[in-house]
Amino acid sequence: MATERHRIAIIGLGQIGASIGMDMRGSFKGVDIIGHDKDPETAGLARRRGAVDEVAYTLPGAVEDAAIVIVAVPVTAVREVFTVISPNLSDGAIVTDTASTKMTVLQWAEEILPQTVDFVGGHPMAGVETPGIEGAQSGMFQGATWAIIPLPRTQSKSIDTIVNLVKTLGGEPYFADSVEHDSLVAAISHLPIALSINLMRTAVSSPSWREMARMAAGSFRDVSRLASGSVDMHHSIFATNKDFILHWIDTYVEQLQEMRKLVDEGGDSLQEALQEAYNARDAWLRGRVGETEQDRLYDEVPTASESAIGVFGGERLARIAGRFRRGRR
Amino acid sequence: MATERHRIAIIGLGQIGASIGMDMRGSFKGVDIIGHDKDPETAGLARRRGAVDEVAYTLPGAVEDAAIVIVAVPVTAVREVFTVISPNLSDGAIVTDTASTKMTVLQWAEEILPQTVDFVGGHPMAGVETPGIEGAQSGMFQGATWAIIPLPRTQSKSIDTIVNLVKTLGGEPYFADSVEHDSLVAAISHLPIALSINLMRTAVSSPSWREMARMAAGSFRDVSRLASGSVDMHHSIFATNKDFILHWIDTYVEQLQEMRKLVDEGGDSLQEALQEAYNARDAWLRGRVGETEQDRLYDEVPTASESAIGVFGGERLARIAGRFRRGRR
Repeated sequence: MATERHRIAIIGLGQIGASIGMDMRGSFKGVDIIGHDKDPETAGLARRRGAVDEVAYTLPGAVEDAAIVIVAVPVTAVREVFTVISPNLSDGAIVTDTASTKMTVLQWAEEILPQTVDFVGGHPMAGVETPGIEGAQSGMFQGATWAIIPLPRTQSKSIDTIVNLVKTLGGEPYFADSVEHDSLVAAISHLPIALSINLMRTAVSSPSWREMARMAAGSFRDVSRLASGSVDMHHSIFATNKDFILHWIDTYVEQLQEMRKLVDEGGDSLQEALQEAYNARDAWLRGRVGETEQDRLYDEVPTASESAIGVFGGERLARIAGRFRRGRR
Repeated sequence: MATERHRIAIIGLGQIGASIGMDMRGSFKGVDIIGHDKDPETAGLARRRGAVDEVAYTLPGAVEDAAIVIVAVPVTAVREVFTVISPNLSDGAIVTDTASTKMTVLQWAEEILPQTVDFVGGHPMAGVETPGIEGAQSGMFQGATWAIIPLPRTQSKSIDTIVNLVKTLGGEPYFADSVEHDSLVAAISHLPIALSINLMRTAVSSPSWREMARMAAGSFRDVSRLASGSVDMHHSIFATNKDFILHWIDTYVEQLQEMRKLVDEGGDSLQEALQEAYNARDAWLRGRVGETEQDRLYDEVPTASESAIGVFGGERLARIAGRFRRGRR
């Protein structure tokens, strides 16, 4: 069976795993997508929703003969999955993941996975509020930044394979090292999660919450939205990226104390601060953050991020990163 | 001209004023909607977009012979509008507003408006990100809570008129006194605005903002959304509801310090806190906040809010509030 056709295994058929399967099945010929989920009902649903060709009811069975193994489970479950699949991975298989934090995942990959396979960490910056397979959808990764974090020993051709897979799904590869990745997502993804949850905590802590709830509308709905995300996923994010998240909570509180002072004083400096925040978000929405005249003239100059990869991941990686970064423009 | 037909004046043709006009024009017969905006271009656009029947280029001209005057300007502009229109208001006219804070507005109404008119404060809990008339749309108030805050001396029939107008626009009247209103919206509307703006401030304060900006996706977009709201509106909200907002910022920071501790310690208590926030938002989305078995049995029992109106606004208002509260179920 594996002689003519290639097998790709997806471990974990939640929102991300099932969405990957849906878009891969339409894009690859000569490939069988084998799915596994610890919950057989979820696996059956994934099959019916067209996310996988075949369900494997055991983890070792799922990865057998697979050329690519995509581990799409919450970060705290990654270690156990690596441990269980390791004896059954084919020589030359490529293992990737989609977990929200990367330092621990890369450490586990280094320690647990056999030397005969290549690991390329991944993190698609996409997702919807509805947790689990109910939130899975085709087109989920269209235009989404997809962080790519290989191990230092990972072969270039394996990185290329995952990069191509990401592009096929509509994602935009973004090379980072695991420390940089975890620090960045702590600020732009995990901090917002903490803030959103804490808005709910603050509101319900009030004796007037019942009256507030009637008045609460769009502003409250948007800023509290992430409190409705998967509790397990949030817990595993906080567990595996604690230090960076605590740092960003502290930075946020410092900024909030400054803003409190501006609100208290009122006047022009408050107005200026509001305008600056408005302008900053506007630049972000238009994809023009940090753009200078020089950037437009010398697009080939490596960014700070690229240089950091040079330091952490070697010049080869930095070159690959540069290639893809420019390709994304 | 005013003998056969009624005139309704809308002062301020931004997002809220123009949206009100659009839906009123389709709903009322025998009524002319006269619009005024300090920016003549905005007024012209409102006319072309069907938000008003007629543009008045002066404030006094707009309110002349008007049975109802809707003041839909940022809260900091309300005082000046009251002052300018007062000499030209018809006897028996009803003045209402849509400003985000109510304590100052009710104080100004009491001090500035003539005794020959009735004032009914209003605040529709609706709006979209796009500021100004560009964000105006028909159906804006469908299902939206609309706070109603009359002066103590306001006649019952004037309150009824505004309540009917609100219902015609699809809004759900919610009676409050101005202190209760400002305290509630500080928590569920103004605090989220401050948090959202402060997330932008925190992100751009980092030397890595350029790299973060590439990774930032849905979580960041949602929680930072309010930073793209009208700077002038936000400034006027912070200026007129400062004390309650500062209180809620402090409460938020206290809760965030507690949450920081939970993240730092990890484990079951963090998991429980995340689950509690999840459940609280779920109850809110399903409209079941604070619902108990007794509520379902004795729907006629006044809520805390209703009792508060009894204290602040007299028993008559509490009865009216109760009538509408039950009508909304």
